[in-house]
Amino acid sequence: MDDKTVAENGYSRRSFLADSGKVIAGAAVASSLLTGQAKEAMAYPYVTDYKYTKLDPQEVGRISYENYFKRWCASCIIAGFVEPLRKKVGGQWKSYPIDAMRWAHGGLAGWGATCGTLNGAGMIIGLVTKDTDIAESMVNDLAFYYSYTELPSYTPAKIMKAKIHHMTLAGTIICHISIGRWMRAEDVSFFSNARSERCARLAANIAIETTGMLNDWSDGKYKPKHKLRYNLIANGITSQNNCMDCHGQNVPSVEEYNTLKK
Amino acid sequence: MDDKTVAENGYSRRSFLADSGKVIAGAAVASSLLTGQAKEAMAYPYVTDYKYTKLDPQEVGRISYENYFKRWCASCIIAGFVEPLRKKVGGQWKSYPIDAMRWAHGGLAGWGATCGTLNGAGMIIGLVTKDTDIAESMVNDLAFYYSYTELPSYTPAKIMKAKIHHMTLAGTIICHISIGRWMRAEDVSFFSNARSERCARLAANIAIETTGMLNDWSDGKYKPKHKLRYNLIANGITSQNNCMDCHGQNVPSVEEYNTLKK
Repeated sequence: MDDKTVAENGYSRRSFLADSGKVIAGAAVASSLLTGQAKEAMAYPYVTDYKYTKLDPQEVGRISYENYFKRWCASCIIAGFVEPLRKKVGGQWKSYPIDAMRWAHGGLAGWGATCGTLNGAGMIIGLVTKDTDIAESMVNDLAFYYSYTELPSYTPAKIMKAKIHHMTLAGTIICHISIGRWMRAEDVSFFSNARSERCARLAANIAIETTGMLNDWSDGKYKPKHKLRYNLIANGITSQNNCMDCHGQNVPSVEEYNTLKK
Repeated sequence: MDDKTVAENGYSRRSFLADSGKVIAGAAVASSLLTGQAKEAMAYPYVTDYKYTKLDPQEVGRISYENYFKRWCASCIIAGFVEPLRKKVGGQWKSYPIDAMRWAHGGLAGWGATCGTLNGAGMIIGLVTKDTDIAESMVNDLAFYYSYTELPSYTPAKIMKAKIHHMTLAGTIICHISIGRWMRAEDVSFFSNARSERCARLAANIAIETTGMLNDWSDGKYKPKHKLRYNLIANGITSQNNCMDCHGQNVPSVEEYNTLKK
């Protein structure tokens, strides 16, 4: 499998998996596509009037960062693209409702599941790329980038909320795990300006990475970095392959979160 | 907290929590909104040209069900709304790219996180409701419906893939956990026509529930059933309150999934 084994904050996923005794680390379950399923999985082109033109990644990142503090993680990235596309392309973008995905923040209205940055970026990718396979490949590459890069690495020219000091590996696209690991490293609580600043910078990173992919695609140069998962299922189900990283004993206690700085 | 404690397939979440010794069941962490955060959380209206008119829930459900087998869980629900809205309203809906969110299937391109049905339904809700608070309230209510209702209860007039026999409680909006619990009850693998049929029927349920909320809203009668979570954080972080339900020892082994019927 293509999930990476990474070390973060002193614990190693590899030892976790080895200790669990429940998951065979690296064991790939053979693809077993049935005929009907293969037909469903087929990619196809589609029509969209949302035209793309190459954008400045740093500008998209800055707008996303600044918009986070009002619009949160999904819609701030949509703003990062829609604001310059309204000026440079116009057309359908002029009336696109930037806030229509604000609900995706906090892993869907605060439920802590998929990070809203990926929904926002995915929406833009889907609106412009005109092919289910290309859109899914970009979103998949973005999920790898999100999960296996130390983030946030974006440094704003003008800091809006707080100085922050740590970058962490999420190891997953799940909001509360990604945030929780960073909160522990930074020693701050969820309701802190520092945590808010972290998510804003993370949104800028995702926006910049997305702009790079879309600019490459616009030049006819985009190539997927990772295989798609719909015929490469880990553990016989839609998932990553680092099961025990979430399902093991690594969950922090309520008390631990309550000791983090406000 | 308002997460329900439910029994499913012979195990009880309550005993799980009690056994873990790590989580205080039902312990609500006091809301600690800082001034800056409260300002960020404020709701506001926004402009959208995507007009809504009341739709027949059963028609939206049927279209969503039928489209699942090509478009999968997110875009099939978008199809369920966009197809009738193109006829009844026209305007912006005529050019809306139904497939622009196909990548959200399988919990985001097969990563197993948030169920794509909630992304598809959320997108429609966001496109029409014109207020961040209303959109988020509906998505929140939908997440409760998804997590704490035995599903799928939808029965198609014409079955497209397979007869299926079980309804299960997901207990979460996470794709692979929701699917996995149903797979165990039904004793079928991920790559089975039965699993595909289950997700298609589930999409119909989510589409029907969403239509009901939007129709009520259209009549000025929509009232949120549940409190929003952004100032009611469980465990000091964006999350549900049933932590050990996922983070405990309840993860099935690879071997268990491999014994399920193809």
